[in-house]
Amino acid sequence: MCGHAVGHTRICQMFVFAHQRGGRDFSNHISAVQPPIGCPKKRQVRICIKGWRAGLGTGEIAVGDLAALVAMGGTAPSRYALRHDQLLDGLVFVAKGTAVTDVWSAGRYVVKSGHIRYAIRPPIMPVAISRVVTPPFFQATSIRSLHRRTFIIYPISSATRLVLPVTLGFYFVPPNTIAKLGHLMAKPKNILFIMFDQLRWDYLSCYGHPHLHTPNIDRLAAKGVRFNKAYIQSPLCGPSRMSTYTGRYVHSHGASSNNVPLKVGERTMGDYLRDAGMGCWLVGKTHMTADAEGMARLGLEPDSVIGARVSECGFDIFERDDGMRPEGPDGFYDDSGALKYNAYLRSKGYHSDNPWHDYANSANDADNNVLSGWFLKNSDLPANIAEEDSETPYLTRRGMDFITAQGDAPWCCHLSYIKPHWPYIVPAPYHDMFGPEHFLRVVRSEAEREDPHPVYGGMMKAPVCTAFSRDDVRDKVLRAYMGLIKQCDDQMGVLFDWLEETGRMKDTMIVVTSDHGDYLGDHWLGEKTFFHDAAIKVPLIVYDPSPEADKTRGTTSYALVQSIDLVPTFTDVAGVDPSKLDHVLEGKSLLPLLHGKAETVARNYVFCEFDYSMRPLAHALDLDTTEARIFMVSDDRWKLIQFGGGFRSMLFDLAKDPQELTDLGDSAAHQEVISQLTAVLDDWARRPSQRTTMTTDTLMASRHKASTKGVLLGAVDEGDMPAELSVKYRGKKVPKWQDR
Amino acid sequence: MCGHAVGHTRICQMFVFAHQRGGRDFSNHISAVQPPIGCPKKRQVRICIKGWRAGLGTGEIAVGDLAALVAMGGTAPSRYALRHDQLLDGLVFVAKGTAVTDVWSAGRYVVKSGHIRYAIRPPIMPVAISRVVTPPFFQATSIRSLHRRTFIIYPISSATRLVLPVTLGFYFVPPNTIAKLGHLMAKPKNILFIMFDQLRWDYLSCYGHPHLHTPNIDRLAAKGVRFNKAYIQSPLCGPSRMSTYTGRYVHSHGASSNNVPLKVGERTMGDYLRDAGMGCWLVGKTHMTADAEGMARLGLEPDSVIGARVSECGFDIFERDDGMRPEGPDGFYDDSGALKYNAYLRSKGYHSDNPWHDYANSANDADNNVLSGWFLKNSDLPANIAEEDSETPYLTRRGMDFITAQGDAPWCCHLSYIKPHWPYIVPAPYHDMFGPEHFLRVVRSEAEREDPHPVYGGMMKAPVCTAFSRDDVRDKVLRAYMGLIKQCDDQMGVLFDWLEETGRMKDTMIVVTSDHGDYLGDHWLGEKTFFHDAAIKVPLIVYDPSPEADKTRGTTSYALVQSIDLVPTFTDVAGVDPSKLDHVLEGKSLLPLLHGKAETVARNYVFCEFDYSMRPLAHALDLDTTEARIFMVSDDRWKLIQFGGGFRSMLFDLAKDPQELTDLGDSAAHQEVISQLTAVLDDWARRPSQRTTMTTDTLMASRHKASTKGVLLGAVDEGDMPAELSVKYRGKKVPKWQDR
Repeated sequence: MCGHAVGHTRICQMFVFAHQRGGRDFSNHISAVQPPIGCPKKRQVRICIKGWRAGLGTGEIAVGDLAALVAMGGTAPSRYALRHDQLLDGLVFVAKGTAVTDVWSAGRYVVKSGHIRYAIRPPIMPVAISRVVTPPFFQATSIRSLHRRTFIIYPISSATRLVLPVTLGFYFVPPNTIAKLGHLMAKPKNILFIMFDQLRWDYLSCYGHPHLHTPNIDRLAAKGVRFNKAYIQSPLCGPSRMSTYTGRYVHSHGASSNNVPLKVGERTMGDYLRDAGMGCWLVGKTHMTADAEGMARLGLEPDSVIGARVSECGFDIFERDDGMRPEGPDGFYDDSGALKYNAYLRSKGYHSDNPWHDYANSANDADNNVLSGWFLKNSDLPANIAEEDSETPYLTRRGMDFITAQGDAPWCCHLSYIKPHWPYIVPAPYHDMFGPEHFLRVVRSEAEREDPHPVYGGMMKAPVCTAFSRDDVRDKVLRAYMGLIKQCDDQMGVLFDWLEETGRMKDTMIVVTSDHGDYLGDHWLGEKTFFHDAAIKVPLIVYDPSPEADKTRGTTSYALVQSIDLVPTFTDVAGVDPSKLDHVLEGKSLLPLLHGKAETVARNYVFCEFDYSMRPLAHALDLDTTEARIFMVSDDRWKLIQFGGGFRSMLFDLAKDPQELTDLGDSAAHQEVISQLTAVLDDWARRPSQRTTMTTDTLMASRHKASTKGVLLGAVDEGDMPAELSVKYRGKKVPKWQDR
Repeated sequence: MCGHAVGHTRICQMFVFAHQRGGRDFSNHISAVQPPIGCPKKRQVRICIKGWRAGLGTGEIAVGDLAALVAMGGTAPSRYALRHDQLLDGLVFVAKGTAVTDVWSAGRYVVKSGHIRYAIRPPIMPVAISRVVTPPFFQATSIRSLHRRTFIIYPISSATRLVLPVTLGFYFVPPNTIAKLGHLMAKPKNILFIMFDQLRWDYLSCYGHPHLHTPNIDRLAAKGVRFNKAYIQSPLCGPSRMSTYTGRYVHSHGASSNNVPLKVGERTMGDYLRDAGMGCWLVGKTHMTADAEGMARLGLEPDSVIGARVSECGFDIFERDDGMRPEGPDGFYDDSGALKYNAYLRSKGYHSDNPWHDYANSANDADNNVLSGWFLKNSDLPANIAEEDSETPYLTRRGMDFITAQGDAPWCCHLSYIKPHWPYIVPAPYHDMFGPEHFLRVVRSEAEREDPHPVYGGMMKAPVCTAFSRDDVRDKVLRAYMGLIKQCDDQMGVLFDWLEETGRMKDTMIVVTSDHGDYLGDHWLGEKTFFHDAAIKVPLIVYDPSPEADKTRGTTSYALVQSIDLVPTFTDVAGVDPSKLDHVLEGKSLLPLLHGKAETVARNYVFCEFDYSMRPLAHALDLDTTEARIFMVSDDRWKLIQFGGGFRSMLFDLAKDPQELTDLGDSAAHQEVISQLTAVLDDWARRPSQRTTMTTDTLMASRHKASTKGVLLGAVDEGDMPAELSVKYRGKKVPKWQDR
């Protein structure tokens, strides 16, 4: 009843939920607010009133309402970034059950320190109490509009005191709503978003590699859904990742090549998830370049909370490590690259100017000479480092450190590995696990080199491509590449075992994917930067622990999916309906597919792009910076590659030529297919990707809105419209201006 | 010599220019900095050192440099927005001569309070002293790169003191550079950017109207260049203006309809001009809606200096007046609309709830009843207001108030009129100056109404279009519309006379244009929102006072120009080479054309767009928000209108059918033209409009940059590249990890 003191040190936010019933003025019930005892002094205590009218009507706090006092855990940094109603929406309506630490009803604890003290009986409360105060049904379609519209919030000064009303009771949930919406209640709490770098889709045993056994990743696939047609949005680290992190095509966000900064105005995964009450953290690589000019224009300091997030592609940083500590005559490629990792290596006794290079990415000969991993002739040698100190196990431990440090608040952790990306070298025992008998046959034909498309032919001439076209080079590099992947898989075993032990496997969605593939000599190319599946198709495995996903466990999906689908999937998990964000996000949530409610996403085509205007090839072909760009569109059957600069398109028939060895771009018989796919690409290019400041719902609602604010177009006289629209223009008198 | 005290109250910034010669450490010359006496205390005093090596090499401050101490006038608000090197670049290298108030050399004044005290002889200083310290040649192509690269700046705490060195001397300007670049020295100092709203291109006598004589605007045309093919980017106020103010297509900036906020990340005219040291101010209308969500994400407070600019489309606000004080049963259309104007009217004795409506935009009958200007039946009546108190004269005076308040600093003033936009009503004597004998014949045919294109046909059905298709309505509205334009022209006379008297006509570029036209019943349409020239072609007259423009005075240009050309033109005037901004700006500078150096701009096509996804027509046609959009491309001969949602295109032959009465969209004979123009539009849609964070120069330079920072791709061994590139990877020794 009166004067409850909250004795839990982690409580920093409190809410009163009021269910309207009619009668007396509810505000009478509240006479004071008392800051919870033990709350850190630096944190502002918030006490809010939140009211809801039963059913789907509008809500106000009023007479004789039932109410419950709810206390939220207060340790997760992410919640301090939330403001006002975001706080309520994010924490109360979207946060998972464990965010609630305490609930009082009718003057007694019903939940204390997260434990339910008194069972609640139907019909008042047919679900567990933690669900009552964090009702996920607010995400449901049928009452979606309720979420934003029906609540009013009264912040009350923390200087006043609260006496709880005797009418304190439970938040009322209409039973039929619960029955209808119960399926939404078991979304995962956390997201572990694992990305490898340059991991080719077909170099895992679950994707069919006959000799590279990856039992741990396969184990995840057996528990989740393995996507067999997952495409990235650009075959290069930076632009691919910027699409993954923004949920938007490269043509939309503009960071079209490595080191092209992501515009300050682009929203990211971190923005959406934090808005929904979920932290979003980085452990590893992003390849992000901050938009320093855009930030300066808006007065954003890089070391402010907001500035730091904008600088780091929306992530809060647990550890950023792009795995890049190359050094040349003009200094380091990245001044802040791998600093923590190098410090770690030094702490473990690896002393040198640059242990990242001299130990982790080099071998060592009998005379202790450093044999650099940059030289492909050394790729079959063991890196001069204890396996447990190499980059992949190091980042795995850093990921576990992050997860260990988390409290009850939901988190998304982008655990972003550097490997199997170059330098191609791996420590023992992984360096000699694989040999030619384990290699996939190189996919190339002499016909490809005879009169190739000028852009494709130009790419073949790059040093990295001529190198990978040599069998001796391929022989050395593949040993390292496969060894690196084997090490990655073993580390996944360490990680997944630990997640099982700590209970996180039960409440954490796990995603494993890559930012692009690696040609490895296929099609006479090395690296990535073109559009064969070797470069643009990636592994994508999604494990969802919720019961709703049981029916899809271990299945393979052949839906056309894209890396931009991950942001809407994650916002969906965090409790924000991604259709409310479709004016910005260009991907689709995979949750319906994971929950067996859909066999595909609403999409017939995937798109991919590459901007080579910064590359020597653009100079060789005499192209300006608007021309040296390539677009790709693909459906289940065809892949069209369209070039700026007046070149003809390339076309592959994926059904008849799955290895993509025959370019049909100048085949007369295929001009109609080319025209059709070109039209698809043209339609895509015209999409309103920049109209990001008005939601689709608002646009749609505007169609039916009469002008009730006095703009009357084409009205000849008063009779041309309903009378009330011109109410302010009729029946008025003022003097003539000469008489004023 | 030592300890100069600066005794001019308006001095707030000081710079030391040092010319490198070699010898001793220049920093020894500076022992202290003293705040100028009389400088307003709230302004931070800045003392900077700026050094330049003669010729085109790189610059550093060093031994025995010659230097001059230069003081800048400190009253113009625009300079307080500049930061660090922007301050120097903007004020010193771009600001016009009058920005410099004082120069000391070798311990004596050579310029004091703007007056030259000692003449400077060649060869040291072959131009007037104010030009020496504000060298406009830095804008020239040949040493463009110098501008950004050669200066280093050392801000010194204002708490220290400065003793001037005895080696103090003049900034050295190579005489041949001056000779080469002298032609750039006479750009206008200020820009008066006048926009009317809904002024049709052919309703001025200089554009051929036979009865609507506009001698004042014609007078400006006689002194400048009249563009006869000027197109806006969208036939609606908001999106058209956002393109004008950003220099980018609607498809690029995304504010595609009225009330769709302009994204916080979009740079505007104000950003570019302030960066160049020119203030950029608004007097009148913008139709801007702030991106509140984007600002909140970045922590931008609307009332901060930066936040206010972002909220106001980049302008500093002298007076914003969108001319919008409509009121309906749900309140005002714009809560902050016309507040100052209404206050002005009340101060002049026009008392009512809303004098904007009841006097300025309504007539009055014998019984003092308000006859609203919203009802077109009243359009031929005189507005109940003294002519001098109506909106157009009011804004003219506000514009003159702004100009009067300016000091020496260069400014751009966007004097943005509301008229002849609706409500269609005008005070005496303008209300009865025109009658049917003065009207242009309505341009429409019965054929247009027979089986029209579904979207065009749908538009015809809007109330405003059926109203304007009535001859009685047209008869009334045209009287007001033409009277409003006549009043606008008379006000231009007032303004131009005043600019002559105050001397501003000599140093101010004047632009007169409109945001779109008005159908006025042509083609059975009213308002704008479609693509006939009546809606998308606008008057554009540019007067440049500089001698370089003498050869084009009074000429007519038939170049295809667009409203997005104004931002690059203005940055060009302000001293920033617009080609340095072509990664963001999609228009072209008109200066070469104005200076007779080019007959056209580098462009074969103009583009225009309309987003009707918020309109009832989209619902009637059952289109989603991505489909209800229209694109137009036009060249000198053809105009293609392309529709989302699967409709066929429309086509007009502007040569054979200049009145655009015959839609050739389904003419079999024209399918090839349609295909060609469609391809142009498709190519345009794929342009990299979002790659705005890296300049074209940087992209181009990257093509040739060897990897000198250690990233070695495809290197099989040391011999595969120049030895220095792998210098950090060779010749190193470290112990084996087991022995560390």
